[in-house]
Order: sequence, then C-alpha cells, then structure tokens
Amino acid sequence: MTEKILREKIQSAVEQVRAENPMAPSITNTVTQDFVANAQLAVGGSAAMIYLPDEGETMAQIAPAVYINVGTLQPFYAETIPRTLRALKKFSTPYVLDPVAIGLGALRVELLSQMKNFPPAVIRGNASEIISLAKLWGLTDSAAGKTRGVDSTDSVGAAKISALALAKFTGGAVAVSGAEDLVTDGKILAYSAGGSAMLSKVTGGGCALGGVMAIYAAVAQPLVAALTGTAIFNCAASTAEKLSDAPATFKVKFLDELYKVSAEKVAANPLRLEAAV
Amino acid sequence: MTEKILREKIQSAVEQVRAENPMAPSITNTVTQDFVANAQLAVGGSAAMIYLPDEGETMAQIAPAVYINVGTLQPFYAETIPRTLRALKKFSTPYVLDPVAIGLGALRVELLSQMKNFPPAVIRGNASEIISLAKLWGLTDSAAGKTRGVDSTDSVGAAKISALALAKFTGGAVAVSGAEDLVTDGKILAYSAGGSAMLSKVTGGGCALGGVMAIYAAVAQPLVAALTGTAIFNCAASTAEKLSDAPATFKVKFLDELYKVSAEKVAANPLRLEAAV
Amino acid sequence: MTEKILREKIQSAVEQVRAENPMAPSITNTVTQDFVANAQLAVGGSAAMIYLPDEGETMAQIAPAVYINVGTLQPFYAETIPRTLRALKKFSTPYVLDPVAIGLGALRVELLSQMKNFPPAVIRGNASEIISLAKLWGLTDSAAGKTRGVDSTDSVGAAKISALALAKFTGGAVAVSGAEDLVTDGKILAYSAGGSAMLSKVTGGGCALGGVMAIYAAVAQPLVAALTGTAIFNCAASTAEKLSDAPATFKVKFLDELYKVSAEKVAANPLRLEAAV
Repeated sequence: MTEKILREKIQSAVEQVRAENPMAPSITNTVTQDFVANAQLAVGGSAAMIYLPDEGETMAQIAPAVYINVGTLQPFYAETIPRTLRALKKFSTPYVLDPVAIGLGALRVELLSQMKNFPPAVIRGNASEIISLAKLWGLTDSAAGKTRGVDSTDSVGAAKISALALAKFTGGAVAVSGAEDLVTDGKILAYSAGGSAMLSKVTGGGCALGGVMAIYAAVAQPLVAALTGTAIFNCAASTAEKLSDAPATFKVKFLDELYKVSAEKVAANPLRLEAAV
Repeated sequence: MTEKILREKIQSAVEQVRAENPMAPSITNTVTQDFVANAQLAVGGSAAMIYLPDEGETMAQIAPAVYINVGTLQPFYAETIPRTLRALKKFSTPYVLDPVAIGLGALRVELLSQMKNFPPAVIRGNASEIISLAKLWGLTDSAAGKTRGVDSTDSVGAAKISALALAKFTGGAVAVSGAEDLVTDGKILAYSAGGSAMLSKVTGGGCALGGVMAIYAAVAQPLVAALTGTAIFNCAASTAEKLSDAPATFKVKFLDELYKVSAEKVAANPLRLEAAV
Repeated sequence: MTEKILREKIQSAVEQVRAENPMAPSITNTVTQDFVANAQLAVGGSAAMIYLPDEGETMAQIAPAVYINVGTLQPFYAETIPRTLRALKKFSTPYVLDPVAIGLGALRVELLSQMKNFPPAVIRGNASEIISLAKLWGLTDSAAGKTRGVDSTDSVGAAKISALALAKFTGGAVAVSGAEDLVTDGKILAYSAGGSAMLSKVTGGGCALGGVMAIYAAVAQPLVAALTGTAIFNCAASTAEKLSDAPATFKVKFLDELYKVSAEKVAANPLRLEAAV
C-alpha cells in the first residue's frame, strides 16, 4: 500500500465513523472507562462497557468490533473473556487487544496466553507490553520487556521485532505507542509522529486509543484502523498541547480536538513508511 | 396540577436541595459513576455508590431516595438488587430506575422483570428503553423498542403510550429523554424543552440525570422530582452549549451550570402541559 | 522536628517525587479511580489500580507504597485485602488507609477491624471517620463519630484525641481533613490551612488526597508524606478557587495546579505546629 493510498484510507475512516456512528463495546478496566467512552464518542463512535459472559457473547455477535483491555481484571473475567473470545471467533468479529500490565497476576497471564488462539485484529500496547506479549506467545526469544505496572521501560525501536512477529502471526496489525508511534501489519512499518508528552501525565491515554482503534476497526481493515486511531490521537494531542500548560486542561482540549479535527488534517499527520525486511 | 403550581414546585425543589444537601445513594454502572456523583453534588445533593447486598439494605433504610441503574451488571447484583428492592419497599423509600441496555443479557432481563413487583417512584430512560420496559412488564403489546447498546432508536413520541402505561401502573412518574423530553405521572404529560445535542456526545448524561432525579426525589413527589431534574439539565445544557464548541469543554461548563443556575431560571425553563387522554 | 526542618522535608518530598516518578498502586473505590490516578500523575507519581489477591501481594512486594481505600467494597475484597495486608507486613511496605464510609456494611467493619493488626503508615479521613476508626480499634471510648455515607458530621477539633490515639498506636501518621487540616504522628500536631470549600463540591477529593499521600510515602516518612499531600492539596485548591466559580472548572484547575505549583510554594503553605500533650 502506498503512502498516498494509506492517507486516503485514513481520511475515509475518519469520515465514515462520523457518518455512521459505529459502536465498539468494551471489556475494559474500571479506571479509564469514562475516558475510553468519551474518546469513542468524540471521534463519532458509540460506546458500551460490559462485564458478564453472556453479554460478551451477544456483543461479539451484534457489534462490528470489540475492545478488550485487561487492565483491572476481576474474578469473573475468567469466564467472561474466554466466552467472548469464542464468540468473536465464531462471528468473525474483529477485536482490539490492549495487554495492559502483562505479566502481573496469574489470571492475566492465563487470559493473554489463551488469546494466542483468538488472534486480535489489532494489538495496541507500549513497547514493553508488545515485547512481553510476543515472548508469552513464543514468537520471540529476545529478552522480555519490562513493565512497571502500566508503564513502559522500553523504547519503540526495541519493540520492532516483537511487533513484526505478532503482526505476522495474527495477520492483523500491531501498534506500539511511544515518542514516535509504530504501526505494522507485518509488511509495512508505519511511523506516526506528533502527539504530546503531556498525554502520559493523564491516566488512560493508551486505553482511550485502544477504544478508538476499535471504533475504526468497525469500518476499516486492521492496519488502517490502528493507524487512523494513532494519527487522530497525535493530531489532537499536538493541538491540545499548544492550548494548555498542565494535564487536566490538556485532557479537556485533547477530547475536544478528537471531535473537531478535520479528516484531512488527520490524513496529513506526519507519517513515514518502511518496508519490513 | 396547573403549570403555575408545577413551576413553583420545581423552584422549591431546586432550592430545598441546595439548602438541605440530601443524599441519594446509587447502585449504578461503573462507567459514569464520576459523572453521576459530580452532577448530584453540583445540584446540591450528596452521593454514595455501593455494591454489596447489606449495604443496599442499609441505604434503603437510611437514605431519603435511591438510584438504581443497571448499566454494567456484575454477578453479585443478582443478590444485591433484589435485597435492596425488598428493603426499599419495606421502608417505603422511593427509588429512580434507569433501565439502561434493557434486553441485553439474562441477568438484566431477570432483574428488570422483578422490578415490576417493586414499582419505582421514577423511571427514566430513552424512548427505546421505556418502550421495552412497558413491554417486558406486559403493559403494552406494541412493537418493542429497539435499543442498540445504550442508544435509543425510537423517538420520544413513539414512547408516549408506553410511558403512560408505566406511570399508571407504578403510580409514580416516567421520564423519556429526547430532543423534547416527556415526563408524565399518567395524568399530566409535561414536555420540557431546551437542552443540547452535545450532551449525547458525552458519556453518561442519562445516568447523571437519573442520579439527579433521585436527589430531587428526596425532597419532592415523583412528577416534580423527574421534571426538576429534566429542567435543570435542559437549562444547564443550553447554557453550556453556548459556552463551548466541543464535548469535553461542554461537559465542564454543563456541570458548572448545574451548580450556578438560579432556581428561578430552572422553573422558567420551557414547559408545556397536556392532559393524558 | 522544628517547623523549618519540616518545611524543608516537604519541599524535598515534592521535588523527589517529580524527579523519581514513584508508583503507588491502589485498591480503591470505583467512583473516583480516575481522579485518584490523575492526581497521582499530576504530582509526578505513577498509578495502578488492582482487584485480585495475587496482584495485591505482588504490588505489596514490588511497590514502594500502596493505597487502600474501602469506599466501594466488592465480594472478593474479603480475600484481596487480607492477603495484601499480610504481604505489606511481610515486605515492610508502607500503606495509606482511607476508611471511607466506616460503619456501613459487615465486610467493611470486618476488614477495617483486621487492619488493627496491620498498622497503616498513614490513616487519612474526615473527622467522623477518624473518630469511628479509633473507636472500632478500641483506642478511645468517646462517643462515636457519625458518618452519613461518605460525609463527615464532626469537626476536625472533635477528632484530635482520636487522631492522637491512632497515631500513637500505629507509630505512623494520621491526617484529618477539614476546614483546617490536622496531621499528627502522635507527638506533633501540625495544622495545615488553605484549601477550598469547593473541593467538597467535587467527588473524590479525599480519595485523591489519600492516593497522593501514598505517592509521597514512597519517598518520605509518614508524617512528612501526609503533610506534603495535605499542603500541596491546600495550595492547589486555594489557587484553583481563584481561577473558577463552579465545581467542574475548579477540578480542572485544581489538577493543573497539582502539576504546576512549585515545591517552594508547597513548603511555604500556612502551617502551625503544636506539641501533643
């Protein structure tokens, strides 16, 4: 896919979501549900959060895409997530996975291990999470990434091999958030610039990005969905940074910009492509 | 009740809550707890959210009104909600019901069915939810409303018969949120105008409204409580819309206005009455 | 400790957190997780919220400090909190306790009773909560404080004896939030002024303060941690009050100020010391 075509597809995804208001339900952590839902609404989508197994199955059947974020697991997720995964597979519904805090706790390891059998359309994480997931699935034998709770201790560049391995395995896309974000489908390496360091001073930026990618996955293929989410976040954060000097005002301006930014501007966000070797 | 008397009662409800700071505890979804609580505090009330059965029973006994929103059910709600309902009945404590996502999942259907035996003082929902609840309780045999997750696909007018049927059955009030909001006690049909489409671009506006109605239900009869909540939301949203051009700033201004708007202005919000036939 | 030395230690704590970005994971209520996490990030710390027993044990081992807030208990907390407490003791990890809604529900009473065997480094509450906890632990036989849900019905002065008794028992610090805040280690009574009544019109101010104290407990002794959290909140709230006239704008400005206020200004916040008799 050429850069020109990719930019056209990004613009179309932004416009189509605003026109069609697709819903991407979430099984997601309790800390950032408000931010995830408001980001999904701001870009033109619709949100719903659920906990119970049969609700997961129903959503997997009727929704065009689903978001799964393992940030704050509760005991009943041991049933909800596997049953939802089976339904997603049965109904060929794409889902976006955010492997938050991978490595912490037996249930999280168990659920993330199972997901190897239910390849996500998009995997989104920071560098450490992507490195750890590739290792957990036995796709790399490089030194594991280190996560400290929900924070990354590795750089995007260090996660390149892991991201490629995951994308080749799933046949979907992988997005690594960092100073310059990397999105790959295993063939193209797309780097998206912009954004703001201020986003890391607000809780849930990564979660909200995963939720927004799921909205775009309702109307676009995985690489485009991941890249559109990344680009609109980078645009909105760049603008919000100019309009604020502290995190809470930044967050308000950032959500406002997700709503206001033009599709053309998102498509024009700094982007460079490399072929995967 | 004449329009003049109704407006006086609305003004009194706004003033009394600001003077007395009543608490309306909630069993409510996790996505919008922050918005619900902050809206309740902004109008002058007090908030508390609970999950456990014995806490529901205690709150039903000591609080002047309770809010129940079935948005994100968890397994233990199968015990918490029935026990709380029985205590609400025993202590004659009014509660406001928000039947979010009615039709999704076996537990939600079971709990909402049970509530027919514990009539809420106020039922608040969008048109699709009100139509679906009236049908679930066997009060209408009209075509069921369609909900898509948490969104309505029906208009307020289409829910008029269902709202009347529910209000006549419960002896309380029913509020249908839409472009023009309908509130009825089965005898009067009150239409409240104003508001802003921007409120639908923020998650939890309906939940926050239900929580605020519960605050007013602590000091006023159901029709007045539902109408006061609706009117203060319409006033605050109209003003907030003028002060913002995007959802996150709108939400901040909206909550500010709930706190700042005068009781006189709330009472003067556009209102028209019809007798139910 | 003299006032001068205490002010120096407060300034150092503010600076050290900004330099080192310590993480204080929380077991905390679902209503205010977003506010807690964003406050922790704003002062320069890092946040993580967890629910499961083995995650609590791991966090107690690897984190420099932990925050436990019993605001919205769920059934599995009956296992998560005791196992986390045992791990905190085993690894000598300090934790901050917020006994929200003490007295409501059997599980809350049971868990708060158990905590007597696992003395917190810092206990933070409103006057009624502090009075109730001292009584629950059998440290005072004064009339119990009255809580109404999450609100205090007692003044800070009324909680002085209880705060001293708790601090002497735990060997840590106790912070009582009120118009003028009291922090004591059982030897010094430190009163911190400033703040804003507007903070009580926003949900979660107390929770956020507890979370921030846990961040400072990662780098400072209990008295200094509690006093630094109190002082930065009082500074930020005073400034935010001048920049706003309603609760939602106030909250945004308040979080911004937690990020922007200088360490010198926090250290210079009105403070008066008394020796405990």
